[in-house]
Amino acid sequence: MIKVGVIGATGYGGGELVRLLAFHPAAKVRVVTSRSYIGKAYHEVFENFRHDEDLMVQEENIAAIAKECDAVFLALPHGAASRMVTEDLLRQTRIIDFGADFRLSDPAVYEKWYKVEHGAKDLLRKAVYGLSEIYRERVRAARLIANPGCYTTCGILALYPLIRESVIHTDGLIIDAKSGVSGAGRGLDLGVHYDEANENVRAYQVGCHRHTPELEEQLSLAAAQAADRPPGQPIVLTFTPHMVPMNRGILLTAYARLTKDYSYEEIHAIYERYYGKEYFIRLTKKGISPETKWVKASNFCDIGFTLDERTGRLIVIAALDNLVKGAAGQAVQNMNLMFGLEEKAGLELDPVFPA
Amino acid sequence: MIKVGVIGATGYGGGELVRLLAFHPAAKVRVVTSRSYIGKAYHEVFENFRHDEDLMVQEENIAAIAKECDAVFLALPHGAASRMVTEDLLRQTRIIDFGADFRLSDPAVYEKWYKVEHGAKDLLRKAVYGLSEIYRERVRAARLIANPGCYTTCGILALYPLIRESVIHTDGLIIDAKSGVSGAGRGLDLGVHYDEANENVRAYQVGCHRHTPELEEQLSLAAAQAADRPPGQPIVLTFTPHMVPMNRGILLTAYARLTKDYSYEEIHAIYERYYGKEYFIRLTKKGISPETKWVKASNFCDIGFTLDERTGRLIVIAALDNLVKGAAGQAVQNMNLMFGLEEKAGLELDPVFPA
Amino acid sequence: MIKVGVIGATGYGGGELVRLLAFHPAAKVRVVTSRSYIGKAYHEVFENFRHDEDLMVQEENIAAIAKECDAVFLALPHGAASRMVTEDLLRQTRIIDFGADFRLSDPAVYEKWYKVEHGAKDLLRKAVYGLSEIYRERVRAARLIANPGCYTTCGILALYPLIRESVIHTDGLIIDAKSGVSGAGRGLDLGVHYDEANENVRAYQVGCHRHTPELEEQLSLAAAQAADRPPGQPIVLTFTPHMVPMNRGILLTAYARLTKDYSYEEIHAIYERYYGKEYFIRLTKKGISPETKWVKASNFCDIGFTLDERTGRLIVIAALDNLVKGAAGQAVQNMNLMFGLEEKAGLELDPVFPA
Amino acid sequence: MIKVGVIGATGYGGGELVRLLAFHPAAKVRVVTSRSYIGKAYHEVFENFRHDEDLMVQEENIAAIAKECDAVFLALPHGAASRMVTEDLLRQTRIIDFGADFRLSDPAVYEKWYKVEHGAKDLLRKAVYGLSEIYRERVRAARLIANPGCYTTCGILALYPLIRESVIHTDGLIIDAKSGVSGAGRGLDLGVHYDEANENVRAYQVGCHRHTPELEEQLSLAAAQAADRPPGQPIVLTFTPHMVPMNRGILLTAYARLTKDYSYEEIHAIYERYYGKEYFIRLTKKGISPETKWVKASNFCDIGFTLDERTGRLIVIAALDNLVKGAAGQAVQNMNLMFGLEEKAGLELDPVFPA
Repeated sequence: MIKVGVIGATGYGGGELVRLLAFHPAAKVRVVTSRSYIGKAYHEVFENFRHDEDLMVQEENIAAIAKECDAVFLALPHGAASRMVTEDLLRQTRIIDFGADFRLSDPAVYEKWYKVEHGAKDLLRKAVYGLSEIYRERVRAARLIANPGCYTTCGILALYPLIRESVIHTDGLIIDAKSGVSGAGRGLDLGVHYDEANENVRAYQVGCHRHTPELEEQLSLAAAQAADRPPGQPIVLTFTPHMVPMNRGILLTAYARLTKDYSYEEIHAIYERYYGKEYFIRLTKKGISPETKWVKASNFCDIGFTLDERTGRLIVIAALDNLVKGAAGQAVQNMNLMFGLEEKAGLELDPVFPA
Repeated sequence: MIKVGVIGATGYGGGELVRLLAFHPAAKVRVVTSRSYIGKAYHEVFENFRHDEDLMVQEENIAAIAKECDAVFLALPHGAASRMVTEDLLRQTRIIDFGADFRLSDPAVYEKWYKVEHGAKDLLRKAVYGLSEIYRERVRAARLIANPGCYTTCGILALYPLIRESVIHTDGLIIDAKSGVSGAGRGLDLGVHYDEANENVRAYQVGCHRHTPELEEQLSLAAAQAADRPPGQPIVLTFTPHMVPMNRGILLTAYARLTKDYSYEEIHAIYERYYGKEYFIRLTKKGISPETKWVKASNFCDIGFTLDERTGRLIVIAALDNLVKGAAGQAVQNMNLMFGLEEKAGLELDPVFPA
Repeated sequence: MIKVGVIGATGYGGGELVRLLAFHPAAKVRVVTSRSYIGKAYHEVFENFRHDEDLMVQEENIAAIAKECDAVFLALPHGAASRMVTEDLLRQTRIIDFGADFRLSDPAVYEKWYKVEHGAKDLLRKAVYGLSEIYRERVRAARLIANPGCYTTCGILALYPLIRESVIHTDGLIIDAKSGVSGAGRGLDLGVHYDEANENVRAYQVGCHRHTPELEEQLSLAAAQAADRPPGQPIVLTFTPHMVPMNRGILLTAYARLTKDYSYEEIHAIYERYYGKEYFIRLTKKGISPETKWVKASNFCDIGFTLDERTGRLIVIAALDNLVKGAAGQAVQNMNLMFGLEEKAGLELDPVFPA
Repeated sequence: MIKVGVIGATGYGGGELVRLLAFHPAAKVRVVTSRSYIGKAYHEVFENFRHDEDLMVQEENIAAIAKECDAVFLALPHGAASRMVTEDLLRQTRIIDFGADFRLSDPAVYEKWYKVEHGAKDLLRKAVYGLSEIYRERVRAARLIANPGCYTTCGILALYPLIRESVIHTDGLIIDAKSGVSGAGRGLDLGVHYDEANENVRAYQVGCHRHTPELEEQLSLAAAQAADRPPGQPIVLTFTPHMVPMNRGILLTAYARLTKDYSYEEIHAIYERYYGKEYFIRLTKKGISPETKWVKASNFCDIGFTLDERTGRLIVIAALDNLVKGAAGQAVQNMNLMFGLEEKAGLELDPVFPA
């Protein structure tokens, strides 16, 4: 049984992780920590766990936790993870970081977008970007996983095969995403007050959202691997996140120009080639668009596309649950790979509908 | 492996049942039927099952299904189940009926409230009311289960120990319940149009909701068993359901007069005695009220109460997920009992939050 | 033109008041104050007023504002109004207080429920309880109005004629109310975080909500005026508020026992006698229940009832918009009366649907 | 007093029109018709009008209505208006059509997108596209108004100044829009069932929504008027509508490439030049994005933009209430112009928040 610690367990991502691990066949949560609720029972923080009276919120004693636990998940504010993780720690335990600290390979880019100093630049090269479908082999061997962002998971999975196969131009990419409110976390803020978020749609951090450089780095890496594409400039794209009034889910609509004439079937075949055997990626049939309700509370990412022949543009739509495939579920998938388990262990959750 | 058939599988209750059985360790859905979608893949009806391309919607050939399946769940309009179930059928398979046809022992009461003739009056005495916590032993032995209504499950579980122990008067009971919209089903109706149900609360079927006689019969049975209570009149109570703008969940607030002075602790001890070992019933601590969000997508029923000393009245609050403990989850729990399985097999689902 | 000041204008009640007064034919907002946003433009606090760049949030200088304004509305935390209002102030301006400080005639009851000292006990006898339909003449003459609470407005209007006419017993009253989230105000709190309030129903302050003594005092006064009722005990009732996931609206379901046999028509005639000429009270027809969506953004209070012959109980259902008839609209109605204006001036707003 | 008839008054657009006209200073609804509710009181169809018992739903006798009414609003299915309107009718009354029949100048384009024959091709040149801010003078003189679509109103107002002033390229335009559910109308359909639309975001009619040719025609006309732009190809753009779980509101995000370097201030000055004096268009300040909640239940259209210097792309965001500025409010604005009234008569409605 893999012994698990969760540092920063009282946010929505942490709560979802504890839920997913509750009946995981080969892992068990041993420690949960938080700065705000030390000494409380975990079910007092998240009353959905009312039937489990044993789990207590502890102090964030990372040294002790690393000794006790085989895997430690970090769900911390920007900058905190990079100050906590050390070579020494990685020798004792495996780390899966929900945050952004180890997602960008260039610390200068990180510091520019996150406005905080990076505390462990040396470790960046050891970190593996934890998108299982793309980096499966590297994840298996990793001791430090940078679990991808919710928007980025959705955007990369949607566009990766198209960029790898040079189906679309890498300039002029536009990603317009719509997220439920839980993406903003459990902290108090006027923007997530019920009456402010309900019956409202808004764009936020237009042109400056922090998932932008993450999308750009990962998609640029894909472009660099494209067989028939000359080495080019790194991808610079437009990303606009929106908040919509629902608890969970991301719907992402990406716009790209085709590099040449393609039929629907040709593009579908490419997706099929990359994802046909991926359990967690479901390609929709022609004429069917992904919707967030069909993936809720599951680890699936649904992907569909429309060829807009009038404009020569491809419109790709993808949907996932931001707390599962966009956070805790992806993290468990990574854990499963790291420990040689069945990749979908604990994750064969059918989406809950209506929910 | 128990082979399962679901007749009327394209409503919300049927969809939830298929979800719950998908990873049940000892049961497998073999047949789903529906009148509207014959020949379609089930995942075209409920796209959350997009990853499962095998299940097809078939015709409602009950004779063939009874032969093929060990257990058949019926999710049909009022009156249809009583016309379908026969002695012969019950010899071939076990039936769990989601509808009301076998819930009331007196067919005259049924026909008065449901305005439809009962098609199998002889079978009523064979039917077991499938509230596992109360009729566990009878459920084990049953071949025909009347799965309780969503409101009634919540109301009976909330009040049963109090009535059995004569803590409250049996006259003057008031049950005020609030349900999410899925309780009204997937059929089209102006009342469940998004813009009509959203940002609205309404009472409906005030004084005439069909779960009233079911509540009254079951609570009267409990009263009749109360040791220290003289045989009395059947219970007649006031039940007012409300529709609130959310997908799932029932919150029920019951008002009753105490028969004598009780302390909070005394009443809590009575609940503890009845439910302390029940996995699916969670008693909240003093000062904590159940909320629907803490049971969502799970088979739990949370119960709490407040002693209003100013009025000598007890206020009991209970919450459950109308599609799980109020329908499909309760049905699986019954199936588990009927087949000698672990009662919580396939039902150890932590509530999903936020969802 | 009546010059208006709003003290505490940056909550939802204050914002709604400014909206209602924006096109009032005979009143104009001159001053808005707040402790948190001093120096900001009001449209930066509430961007719905983006087209009005003139109104600035000022300091809470009550002495200057009283000199400048003919009417001052207070929307302050408990206890603050009673420390602000003085005899001297009331000589200079008329005060309409949104809070509870002047609603209860007995300061001991106030202090018991609100846990704060009352700062102006001498002024209590000068304050008029501002429920226009009931205290119209006294409101006209008042200089200090205690604007009723949202739940209490709804509950008193629903039950007043029945108690005045001794249609119902005054003991054993139960009021079960459901409110949108805006009733909890714009302050930050985990309970009003979107993901905590959405897809959830919960009861709160069960047996101890502060609108209880207000309901009891007002309904006791009504009972004392009932012609054919012997002087009795003050009313003690059960009041349970619930929060439902919507922005605005209260639906209140009241349960009472009839004092004798009544037909639907007799009771309807009594309501008609009391409210038939009241513009803002709309009695629903037989079989129709009020719903919050039909009163949204308007000053109407809809009232309907069902005679439950099985139990001899009367179920009264009422709906209003908690920010309009339950707060700012009622306040403007009071202002209109105090200044000899048409009572519905500025309030002839048809409900917005769907909204 | 302008006598008004509303043909097809029992949809959401019709209901909103009746609300707006209820207190219009110079117009009064005389006739409302509908095919489904003939003979019913209008307040039985829309209970928000419960206080108005006079208005009855009549048959669709257009000849009689044209005689009786000075202005007739049509809210009909595609194709019906073009079969109803005649030269003769236009001599007797003025027509404002909510539908698409007279919006596109080329009947072949209409028939291609709407799959229905156009019944009044001759009248197309008499119809004026009723976007008041752009065609004010032509609207004043019109007898037949094609009231713009909800998405198109938002998209055209957002982009018109930029295209007229050649700030952006006319190829490669992308419009990604998010609408509340009321845009889909009051008809019954699984897609607008509460449990299907709630907690969900979905794109629909990707690449084939009928507002596309309307956007393209109007923006092409703007491009043709651009002083410094050589005559070019008609605009072909990508338009993707999404449905989000709320009652009302459209948020539209448009992506365009700049034709040359512009500062934020230069672009703002252009918007200011076009819209600075328009009461119903509110430009947001730098760093502030429009949100649907700030325009709800009002006739405002809020517009803001972000210069994404990293990509050289302009991101324009606009918000309006689809039932007001996107339908009934725009229609009243047109009526005001046609009858020589104050353009904002009856429309000075501050947005309702929170609502």
